[in-house]
Amino acid sequence: MTYKIAVLSGDGIGPEIVKQARIVIEAVAKKFGHDFEFTEALVGAVAIEEVGDPYPAETHQLCMNSDAVLFGAIGHPRFDNDPSAKVRPEQGLLAMRKQLGLYANLRPVNTFKSLIHKSPLKTELVDGADFMCIRELTGGIYFGRPQGRTEDGKTAYDTCVYTADEIERIVRLGFEYAGKRRKKLTIVDKANVLASSRLWREVAQKIEPEFPDIEVEYMFVDNAAMQIITWPKRFDVMVTENMFGDILTDEASVISGSMGMLPSASIGIHTSVFEPIHGSYPQAAGKNIANPCATVLSAAMMFEYAFGMMDEGALIRKAVDESLEAGIVTEDIADGNKAYSTSEVGEWLTDFIQ
Amino acid sequence: MTYKIAVLSGDGIGPEIVKQARIVIEAVAKKFGHDFEFTEALVGAVAIEEVGDPYPAETHQLCMNSDAVLFGAIGHPRFDNDPSAKVRPEQGLLAMRKQLGLYANLRPVNTFKSLIHKSPLKTELVDGADFMCIRELTGGIYFGRPQGRTEDGKTAYDTCVYTADEIERIVRLGFEYAGKRRKKLTIVDKANVLASSRLWREVAQKIEPEFPDIEVEYMFVDNAAMQIITWPKRFDVMVTENMFGDILTDEASVISGSMGMLPSASIGIHTSVFEPIHGSYPQAAGKNIANPCATVLSAAMMFEYAFGMMDEGALIRKAVDESLEAGIVTEDIADGNKAYSTSEVGEWLTDFIQ
Ligand SMILES: CC(C)[C@H](C(=O)O)[C@@H](O)C(=O)O
Ligand SMILES: CC(C)[C@H](C(=O)O)[C@@H](O)C(=O)O
Repeated sequence: MTYKIAVLSGDGIGPEIVKQARIVIEAVAKKFGHDFEFTEALVGAVAIEEVGDPYPAETHQLCMNSDAVLFGAIGHPRFDNDPSAKVRPEQGLLAMRKQLGLYANLRPVNTFKSLIHKSPLKTELVDGADFMCIRELTGGIYFGRPQGRTEDGKTAYDTCVYTADEIERIVRLGFEYAGKRRKKLTIVDKANVLASSRLWREVAQKIEPEFPDIEVEYMFVDNAAMQIITWPKRFDVMVTENMFGDILTDEASVISGSMGMLPSASIGIHTSVFEPIHGSYPQAAGKNIANPCATVLSAAMMFEYAFGMMDEGALIRKAVDESLEAGIVTEDIADGNKAYSTSEVGEWLTDFIQ
Repeated sequence: MTYKIAVLSGDGIGPEIVKQARIVIEAVAKKFGHDFEFTEALVGAVAIEEVGDPYPAETHQLCMNSDAVLFGAIGHPRFDNDPSAKVRPEQGLLAMRKQLGLYANLRPVNTFKSLIHKSPLKTELVDGADFMCIRELTGGIYFGRPQGRTEDGKTAYDTCVYTADEIERIVRLGFEYAGKRRKKLTIVDKANVLASSRLWREVAQKIEPEFPDIEVEYMFVDNAAMQIITWPKRFDVMVTENMFGDILTDEASVISGSMGMLPSASIGIHTSVFEPIHGSYPQAAGKNIANPCATVLSAAMMFEYAFGMMDEGALIRKAVDESLEAGIVTEDIADGNKAYSTSEVGEWLTDFIQ
């Protein structure tokens, strides 16, 4: 069997980091005797430039026919500070999420022993922190309609909508992952204010009895925003809706102190997408200095979540851990020691795996 | 002239802490020759119990006729985990905000030298952090309609609405406060996703030229959630909409490491409300152990923001600083040293002021 991987490198440092993840995947495939077929396609600002659409139909077709999507980053300074530009890279991202049905965005939050001093939080608070944020990714205020302006242009509105089915799907995922971990699930909402949050709570409470071994807690989003900082170790699996998830996952990402190390997976109906959480980092584009580890670790998630290949994922993680120990790191985490290039890190990881 | 203060102590530790703030206000009034008249009224769970309404009409009338409102805290464990209870304390809070037109919630974020070690963040990151969060408090998804369920109960929706006038009012306040501070304004939105945020940005950009000495930046809410932790000193004044403000102000509140020290002001059309940011802390109610400083510092904000009495506010701040230096503190910040009671701290502050 040949696994089909769509490669959407996107903008900025995207192509450089994805290239390294790809050679790592190839090394793992070779070692374990898997067969992967990679096909590249356009997304983001570069897709706008070339075909006028940040998520072209051709790219979508490729993704639909792929077993997994390896994604780089999108965004270009040209579009910053112009949120009203007609065609924007982010629209491509949102279109991709919706059209591929990428309903669950998974973001592991953890630390790396040798980088823990880089955390803005005190070491004793973050050492050992290890939780999984699950963000609903295709519903809520991101996609709810109506959205727009009144005719006089003086009033704007957005709509947050959730159906019981959408909520159930993601909450179940939360219970399942919690079951494979430390058996604690935190459901974050704003049920004291929002009707949609009250439905979240109602649906979750209905599911609860099916998972008697999972300890469930309900937490208001404002409280969660505090606890992520003051007591990150209290969390095991956290589930929340799209907009709260956008804010809380980015907040939680600072815990490790190393943005360049953080992967994500977006589980979908049609396929799943694996991408680093950092952006397109345009200042570094083309310089061969960006940290490829977040993308490489996203590839590890791909093995685990898309193909159930746990040993393969574990080997990649081990390679990254060893590279940190050995000091084979890019400048963002080199701390004044020798900094290696993007491709040097990628090659070191590949060598290690072989 | 007699200044009329409505005293809404509310639930839990509310009555105890408000009592101390009140004697501090009286001491300041005496010293500076002002005349204050205090009138108490019901709010919160206790109001539900006594008259079936968390914000009774009588309380509202009193507030409308008052120059300022001193507020304690609301909330009772009885209502937790039952977000669908018909009458809830939070409804009183929201009703008060709406009916008094409390459109701007101000939350100073800063640290206290002697407490800085209590911050979850590293000292070098927070030492010197000093910014003002301004949260829009009467609009957005908190009050937008329609809100509710479809007939089959299976879909829930909330509406985020903002008018250009609502936005202009709060953004202007942001510019004005920035002008009195370090002249930097950060406007937080999600203009890459929300129509309401795009209107925020449009309105703000229109106002910008009127304040040429203010440096304005626009920041997405997910980025703000990171920067608050990684680089709090970059902020001077931050303005944002209601729900983002709920999350970000609570997140920012952890910076100081001492919840019991943080005041707030809600500026309104009809009057203004001054309250600690912490909750009703039911476990401590009646024990005379709660930290009164957040409420006392809210009283300082009352002098400054409601009455323009800057020296009076400064004296209260000085008293609190001195009490920290002298170690006259409640158990939450005593760090194993002798802990004083709520009333002992209040009395020490009052003595200092006299
Ligand atoms: C670019 C933006 C639309 C996107 C989001 O808000 O979902 C980003 O912040 C993310 O989290 O992937
Ligand atoms: C109690 C709740 C409705 C309220 C809010 O969300 O505004 C609280 O969190 C606050 O920030 O004052």
